[in-house]
Amino acid sequence: MTFPSIAEIVAAHTGGSGSPTETAVRVADAIEARGDDGTWISVVDREDLFAAAQELESRPDAHSLPLYGVPFGVKDSIDVAGHRTTLACPDFGYIATDTAPAITRLLEAGALYVGKTSLDQFATGLNGTRTPHTIPRSVFGGNMISGGSSSGSALAVALGQVPFAVATDTAGSGRVPAALNGVVGFKPSRGLISAIGLVPACKSLDCMTVMAGCIDDIDRVFEIMAAPDDDDPWSRARGPRYDGRTARIGLPPLADLEFFGDEPMAAAHVAVRDRLQRNGEAVVDTSLAPFLAAGALLYQGPWVAERLVVFEDFLAMQPDSIHPVVREILRSGEKYTAVDAFRAQQRLQELRAEVGRLWRDMDVLLLPTIGTTFTVDEVLARPIECNTALGHYTHFGNLLDLCGVAVPMGLTADGRPCSVMVLGPALADDTVLHVATALAKESL
Amino acid sequence: MTFPSIAEIVAAHTGGSGSPTETAVRVADAIEARGDDGTWISVVDREDLFAAAQELESRPDAHSLPLYGVPFGVKDSIDVAGHRTTLACPDFGYIATDTAPAITRLLEAGALYVGKTSLDQFATGLNGTRTPHTIPRSVFGGNMISGGSSSGSALAVALGQVPFAVATDTAGSGRVPAALNGVVGFKPSRGLISAIGLVPACKSLDCMTVMAGCIDDIDRVFEIMAAPDDDDPWSRARGPRYDGRTARIGLPPLADLEFFGDEPMAAAHVAVRDRLQRNGEAVVDTSLAPFLAAGALLYQGPWVAERLVVFEDFLAMQPDSIHPVVREILRSGEKYTAVDAFRAQQRLQELRAEVGRLWRDMDVLLLPTIGTTFTVDEVLARPIECNTALGHYTHFGNLLDLCGVAVPMGLTADGRPCSVMVLGPALADDTVLHVATALAKESL
Repeated sequence: MTFPSIAEIVAAHTGGSGSPTETAVRVADAIEARGDDGTWISVVDREDLFAAAQELESRPDAHSLPLYGVPFGVKDSIDVAGHRTTLACPDFGYIATDTAPAITRLLEAGALYVGKTSLDQFATGLNGTRTPHTIPRSVFGGNMISGGSSSGSALAVALGQVPFAVATDTAGSGRVPAALNGVVGFKPSRGLISAIGLVPACKSLDCMTVMAGCIDDIDRVFEIMAAPDDDDPWSRARGPRYDGRTARIGLPPLADLEFFGDEPMAAAHVAVRDRLQRNGEAVVDTSLAPFLAAGALLYQGPWVAERLVVFEDFLAMQPDSIHPVVREILRSGEKYTAVDAFRAQQRLQELRAEVGRLWRDMDVLLLPTIGTTFTVDEVLARPIECNTALGHYTHFGNLLDLCGVAVPMGLTADGRPCSVMVLGPALADDTVLHVATALAKESL
Repeated sequence: MTFPSIAEIVAAHTGGSGSPTETAVRVADAIEARGDDGTWISVVDREDLFAAAQELESRPDAHSLPLYGVPFGVKDSIDVAGHRTTLACPDFGYIATDTAPAITRLLEAGALYVGKTSLDQFATGLNGTRTPHTIPRSVFGGNMISGGSSSGSALAVALGQVPFAVATDTAGSGRVPAALNGVVGFKPSRGLISAIGLVPACKSLDCMTVMAGCIDDIDRVFEIMAAPDDDDPWSRARGPRYDGRTARIGLPPLADLEFFGDEPMAAAHVAVRDRLQRNGEAVVDTSLAPFLAAGALLYQGPWVAERLVVFEDFLAMQPDSIHPVVREILRSGEKYTAVDAFRAQQRLQELRAEVGRLWRDMDVLLLPTIGTTFTVDEVLARPIECNTALGHYTHFGNLLDLCGVAVPMGLTADGRPCSVMVLGPALADDTVLHVATALAKESL
């Protein structure tokens, strides 16, 4: 990244070569310069942003704040008190009375809230086009989608407007747009970051995530956001720190990887795998089958009905306020019975056990984050098929209680971003981030 | 108990004061003497039982077998190869081709399989009357129900026919009949005993359990049955052994306990609590509310639909083969949607988290196993209401991932059995059994 990292911003603010106010001006100008490109749904007024920066500067502990004056965006499905939460559905929107505790922790650490980033409506989608607002495009151009649902969070980071943004991930929403914009997307183990103040998609699967330009920045933000929260029933404590042992990296058979006919993407991924082998990493063969089977359960199964726990009243009362594709998806959840749900959950438990045994022989699993990219026109023409393809490697993550990070790994021969995903079992977050750091260094 | 324990039987067999064949004769005679009292659905033919005993005697390692020649019964929802599994529904019955691995472990340890014990059909009920066969009565007489669904397992032990029997517990089936027959009923943490070969009731909640005359016998049997099984997706390893620290015993406010107007039962339970206090046990106040709220979810919620994962085809094809009360209960599962299921599971997760916090301040929770007893006529007249009352303290056990043991604690003033239940969080099995042992000793 050519944009300043969190460490650099904090160093500038504490060292005197910059200030939160100067940074705020730079951010506001950068956002204004882009115009309505679909990155943000709402931004803090310039005057309010500068006032917040000045307030930070006047804090007696300012120079010891780990995120002193670091600007950040928040996906518009997460509450920030006094600001609208809309989920990209204006009629659903409301002004939040409380700030999500994980966001409060960032603010207390000195971070500067800039605004709400775009998303596929109700966080339902992996492509970024399901919005009544301007459809965001990938920073890589070519009319490429930004990916979703955290389309704006990825873009805001990729554009260098903010060094990090808070996103969410239920079925890939925190990783797919990171891949499409060449940034790092970290989906921690579910429950490590409080999900209070996040409007649920599938409450049992949702988690808040972080996007940033580098893993060091992810580490800094995660360190602050992660904290047990008695108000969040899924909350749990962090697992052990990385113990320094060589991580065994699982690779599925190359023939089992799906690139949807995208040869340049396949070649870019193979190059990453080849380098791993050349560098003498501890690579082990593994199976992708139970992971994909779990993903199919999410996609073809009853979990879509969990979205109705939150949205069924709105769907019934104001169907015309909902994006047509999202509306159809929500309605598809109505057909599932409780028997369907229990049957699918029993099958999932079998797959969890099978995957659990695979972790005996590997510490992390390395996969493409996405198998291919799409243009906005392609997605609009085939909204469901494209979305399914985008989630091929991410759908199963939360169902199988994994943690993972999408790491940019250069470009394809035709100039599109390549991203690999390092996945681990629940609570292996530190190991996953360690492997990702090593990978990212090697790719330089 | 006036009947020989496992230790005494094994000692007699290895010491020469008895033999497996003599024990087999005694068991066969005792069962025959009772006639068709509803305890057993099928028993091994006398000749086959004696042959099995003789085969045991000829094993070179016979005298080192921990259950050498110890007779036992198996609930008729668990497979034993070559024998019919019927679930108290003759038309559903089939001859099993494989023996449940947990039962195989008992046989390999030298135990002598006697037959299949009665149950509420499809293990659906806590009262023992939902059967097309003879309705079993409690060993305490007075036309009292034996409880269910493991009605026969409890009776076979209470009658002294076998020192232990294998049962199951989804919502109390392994504890309620133990309470009504004055035996010990141990429901381990789900997954410690393989559930393979058990026809599921609610697969995500089921577990095999053990009934015996004393906790020492429970320990001996559990030690053999508990083992991880890769074929069981819910399988997990045992938790830590009891560490010798004083266990903090949680007691809810007396006013929150429900005895359904049964004053003698209330008095008997209060006497147990009073003795605990007098003996200076480490008693702590706790709340019963989240436990009961979870129980209400099971009873009034969508989990009944999970039974249809197994039984929906049979219900559709052969409804007349099903007991009318069980049929109505199964049909009630058809009305729930997947949204209902997810909503209830989200609520359950909240309650799990709430209960999880209560375990910070206590190691076990002490409750009545049942609040009152019923006669067969009372249950037949009000099948649903009586059943709900019977499960008041047991419905939540597996939903909240608890382990627990029902321990007989003498009689009420009017001669009915009093039973207390020691509950702990998942994997606290050893601590729960330790507290139960101490309680049982004090009650002598």
